[in-house]
Amino acid sequence: MITNATLQRRLDTRTKPQGSLGALETLAVRIGLALDTETPQFRAPHMFVFAGDHGIATDGVSAFPQAVTAQMLLNYLQGGAAINVLARQHGISLRVVDAGVATDVGHHPNLVTLAVARGTRNFRVEPAMTAEQCAAAINTGKGLAEEALLGGSNALLFGEMGIGNTACASMLLHRRTGWSFEDCVGRGTGLDDAGLARKRERLAEASGRCPSKLTPLETIAEFGGFELAMITGALLATAEQKCVAVIDGFAVSVAALLAIEIDPRVRARCVFSHCSAEHAHRKLLAHLDVKPLLDLGMRLGEGTGAAMAWPLIDSAARLMTEMASFESAGVSDRGS
Amino acid sequence: MITNATLQRRLDTRTKPQGSLGALETLAVRIGLALDTETPQFRAPHMFVFAGDHGIATDGVSAFPQAVTAQMLLNYLQGGAAINVLARQHGISLRVVDAGVATDVGHHPNLVTLAVARGTRNFRVEPAMTAEQCAAAINTGKGLAEEALLGGSNALLFGEMGIGNTACASMLLHRRTGWSFEDCVGRGTGLDDAGLARKRERLAEASGRCPSKLTPLETIAEFGGFELAMITGALLATAEQKCVAVIDGFAVSVAALLAIEIDPRVRARCVFSHCSAEHAHRKLLAHLDVKPLLDLGMRLGEGTGAAMAWPLIDSAARLMTEMASFESAGVSDRGS
Repeated sequence: MITNATLQRRLDTRTKPQGSLGALETLAVRIGLALDTETPQFRAPHMFVFAGDHGIATDGVSAFPQAVTAQMLLNYLQGGAAINVLARQHGISLRVVDAGVATDVGHHPNLVTLAVARGTRNFRVEPAMTAEQCAAAINTGKGLAEEALLGGSNALLFGEMGIGNTACASMLLHRRTGWSFEDCVGRGTGLDDAGLARKRERLAEASGRCPSKLTPLETIAEFGGFELAMITGALLATAEQKCVAVIDGFAVSVAALLAIEIDPRVRARCVFSHCSAEHAHRKLLAHLDVKPLLDLGMRLGEGTGAAMAWPLIDSAARLMTEMASFESAGVSDRGS
Repeated sequence: MITNATLQRRLDTRTKPQGSLGALETLAVRIGLALDTETPQFRAPHMFVFAGDHGIATDGVSAFPQAVTAQMLLNYLQGGAAINVLARQHGISLRVVDAGVATDVGHHPNLVTLAVARGTRNFRVEPAMTAEQCAAAINTGKGLAEEALLGGSNALLFGEMGIGNTACASMLLHRRTGWSFEDCVGRGTGLDDAGLARKRERLAEASGRCPSKLTPLETIAEFGGFELAMITGALLATAEQKCVAVIDGFAVSVAALLAIEIDPRVRARCVFSHCSAEHAHRKLLAHLDVKPLLDLGMRLGEGTGAAMAWPLIDSAARLMTEMASFESAGVSDRGS
């Protein structure tokens, strides 16, 4: 097993002042540990975008109608969404997964159809899914990640799409941390003040329906969603593999929180790509004691933050692997 | 001429919640204006790394000996430095320019040898260069930028290397803004407390040698350096071209300050890539009223911040150009 000290020594002997790559050095060490080598190289990065619908969406907790989930799924399949542009730019294989969209969009060569059900139930009035559905979603996510990793990839990126899933993620965060609804619930894709107040009320009502303490898996079953469950499962699959998992925005970070709670080894696999405009995200990242790479006020989801941070992550690996040492380049170190 | 409103309307009709790309949207508009099109595409990005030596370096204002400038120049030519790794990763043409390194490193196929002199004079005791040398350096920078832009590039990235040039940049900043030496002078590549105190003393002494008010060009001639003069000149050449100039860290930002002072049209060409660990850089960026894309605690120079931000800049252009509209993708806009 490679050690932190070995990796730091390699960085310190590269032709640059010590520490001068800042956060990229911390990241390079993290990657070296995750890939268990001092010359890390990424192979076949895969972006999974999991899409799912949420019963709670009909309660007016989003600025967009539920039909948009399926419409955006088709947009991904046609290559017109932001994540398509970014995946093309960076040579990332994009896999779009129907984890449980309300409308069946039919067969498409680039769509992975593994819907557990046609959307979750409305968690304000009943559990979002059954324990069996939750287990199925977790296992599906695990299977997809394992397939990609065994197929030669060592970098998985995660994104999500689902109208109402910021509400779902806020609810999961509230239940796992006990933080207030003010702290956990934000404007999502663009709610106004009235919409934000309504979203907080609905979630408080939903939480009241189920007062008992829950395990992480029970929390997912109670409040959803299928796409977040699949991401949680996929992250669990990374724990035993030499790989990196790139975490996108708020919703994926909540899935990461759950996965780390279930298996703490997941933490060492995760690279947190960006801090979104959703204020709960900043609090969650601080709670996880991580500094994201980007802080650009983005709030789009789809894996766009992960894709934008990908070149930085790849840079960290390449700098570690490809830079010359002071000795090999014949450059004087400081004070010598 | 394309307008801000046209560009914002295009962004607002792409398949994403309005404003959800955060700072990337501001950047996309900036690029659209600079390239004068609502479908911007970058062509043949060029990174210029200008290297120069500084007489002041012999006064102990750097953690590294002056010989490192020439040694690093050779490292660039052999492909082993951080900027080589990043330029290769992103398909950026790298042009290394000897603007005035103290040691003649000889002929090399990838080296642009345009040294004005073998290092500047020590500005603590005499002017760094003559007015003629300053004009020559400015014109050389202009010529290189014009050649790249007329040759088909519409994106120039700027980096620098030169032991002692953080001291030089701090001095230029002090003289152009009147800010204190505490505000302007930092640890550069890694000075300790005693070194930092010495650097501030030396610069105060140097400034006292020349009490009169100076023009931007006179300031460069008094305090140097050749590499910063060439960057200033290159930036001046961008003012009349449809292009983007990517600004690296502290030293290049000071060159940008000078270029903008000489020709305010340069401002609209500049994209500020990152905020470095040099504390004066943050103050300068605020003074210029710009938010850099990255804030990773880097302090390496060489254009590494510009290169790391390049994929984000390219993403902004591609998202503007390639994303589907709500109408073309058949996606419902909010509230519809």
